[in-house]
Amino acid sequence: MIRFITTGGTIDKIYFDALSRFEVGESALNEILNEALVQFDYEIVPLLRKDSLEMTDEDRRNLRDRIIADDAKGFVITHGTDTMPETAEALMGIDDKIIVLTGALTPARFRTTDAVFNVGMAVATVQSAKPGVYIAMSGHVFEAGKVRKNRDANRFEPL
Amino acid sequence: MIRFITTGGTIDKIYFDALSRFEVGESALNEILNEALVQFDYEIVPLLRKDSLEMTDEDRRNLRDRIIADDAKGFVITHGTDTMPETAEALMGIDDKIIVLTGALTPARFRTTDAVFNVGMAVATVQSAKPGVYIAMSGHVFEAGKVRKNRDANRFEPL
Amino acid sequence: MIRFITTGGTIDKIYFDALSRFEVGESALNEILNEALVQFDYEIVPLLRKDSLEMTDEDRRNLRDRIIADDAKGFVITHGTDTMPETAEALMGIDDKIIVLTGALTPARFRTTDAVFNVGMAVATVQSAKPGVYIAMSGHVFEAGKVRKNRDANRFEPL
Amino acid sequence: MIRFITTGGTIDKIYFDALSRFEVGESALNEILNEALVQFDYEIVPLLRKDSLEMTDEDRRNLRDRIIADDAKGFVITHGTDTMPETAEALMGIDDKIIVLTGALTPARFRTTDAVFNVGMAVATVQSAKPGVYIAMSGHVFEAGKVRKNRDANRFEPL
Repeated sequence: MIRFITTGGTIDKIYFDALSRFEVGESALNEILNEALVQFDYEIVPLLRKDSLEMTDEDRRNLRDRIIADDAKGFVITHGTDTMPETAEALMGIDDKIIVLTGALTPARFRTTDAVFNVGMAVATVQSAKPGVYIAMSGHVFEAGKVRKNRDANRFEPL
Repeated sequence: MIRFITTGGTIDKIYFDALSRFEVGESALNEILNEALVQFDYEIVPLLRKDSLEMTDEDRRNLRDRIIADDAKGFVITHGTDTMPETAEALMGIDDKIIVLTGALTPARFRTTDAVFNVGMAVATVQSAKPGVYIAMSGHVFEAGKVRKNRDANRFEPL
Repeated sequence: MIRFITTGGTIDKIYFDALSRFEVGESALNEILNEALVQFDYEIVPLLRKDSLEMTDEDRRNLRDRIIADDAKGFVITHGTDTMPETAEALMGIDDKIIVLTGALTPARFRTTDAVFNVGMAVATVQSAKPGVYIAMSGHVFEAGKVRKNRDANRFEPL
Repeated sequence: MIRFITTGGTIDKIYFDALSRFEVGESALNEILNEALVQFDYEIVPLLRKDSLEMTDEDRRNLRDRIIADDAKGFVITHGTDTMPETAEALMGIDDKIIVLTGALTPARFRTTDAVFNVGMAVATVQSAKPGVYIAMSGHVFEAGKVRKNRDANRFEPL
């Protein structure tokens, strides 16, 4: 049983024409999983709708507590890319759970996007990897604490 | 280093208007990996362009030999869905390699498709799983020999 | 008031995995008009689901009779591309109506398709042109009787 | 011969991850026309990259002068939606030219967008309508001076 938790980020940015602005909207995760023809039951917990530059240590503590209190063994967390490595590190050290963070460098609702591939990576990682915390981005499965976002090159890299 | 091998299947079906017909065309895998913003080097080996109902035991032997002779440790193989379980079983028992088969129930070139998610699953599995043979379909990572395609319901299920 | 009539063709071809085959399915026209944010009321009449190589003279007579009997002044007809010029000619000579045929060289449900642009062309032509019969394909608005499909080059051209 | 002139607007908004922001980028018009399999030669003149709330009367004068000085008879102008009616009115009264303004309420690079349909409408209008100035939006071909944008309802309506 995989628990999905959404926290916001570029993956869920939508254009609001009335505001002439893009903001984090309702998560695209449900559409992604439907289109992927997944055959497992799932539940999506919409925890936050934040750009990850606005994530606070309190947000990270709440997320960690939420995961600890949850019976599920596998977690996929969608998150903004800018502070994904920080959040991943804040989730380390929880026994017996496989926690995978992912997101996208281009919104899921764009025609050309990495969002769908990344969620696919996360869903497979949570089924294949040993307990621990991971980031699935840029085609790579990284262990938490061993990855950074290279903002200039717009990609995730090993530390 | 991940070696990608394409063998055909629905994932790569294209509409040829001059023929008024759909056939397996050039693989969509390169576009999928580019759009996913993957940061690893990769090589795609276009081995076959077959609907999997036309795969023969000789084809499967050639594929197995190809993998054994290859130095790479990780393989992602795109394949038609109808006989993917058979081909997966034919690849079991090769030491020290992680082999993941995937494909799609709807062509990659369709607007709504499971292809991108499935390739994402396969790319993550080849990095996270123990040596062995796997199928990544229907949102699930299956071990070879423990999966079947349910044609009526159009999904992959545990045996 | 625009009456939409669907007759089939490549524009509406869908992949039926259970059959390993593509066939004309339910029309994509409703999704196209919704996504285009059109603000007029419309009705879609699903007349046929034929590949246009299978359209008969009787089909064309029925279509003509249907249009004559209809109060509406403007008609958009989606149709297979192969015999679109023949059907257009069979509809000439009906007073006071603007009739525009269109379709697509690639199915509407594909990621890259001319279908949406073509329907947009047809919807504008039926509002802008003088009474008569037209084909909107290949970026061009043709008068019936003055156009052919060049099958080798996969495009519509003036006769 | 259709001259295309791009001035910016939502149709061309792109997400710049490095800036965590969406801005008007290079026009999507070329991709739209290619995908539509248009068979005419065309030239795209990238005049401006403005959100239309930032269009000035001087910008409108320059656009008008540009059109008057141009030999072409048909013009398709992509433009932001907010002040498209104002720009349309500023272009009235130029003899012997068919000028069609269009744009989109959702960026062309989104998966679900009105952009492609709207450009299709404009390309057909410039071939079918009498000399004058038009707006092709919301599934409707409007004459300049007889249309407004209803911002609350996010649609174009007759005045």
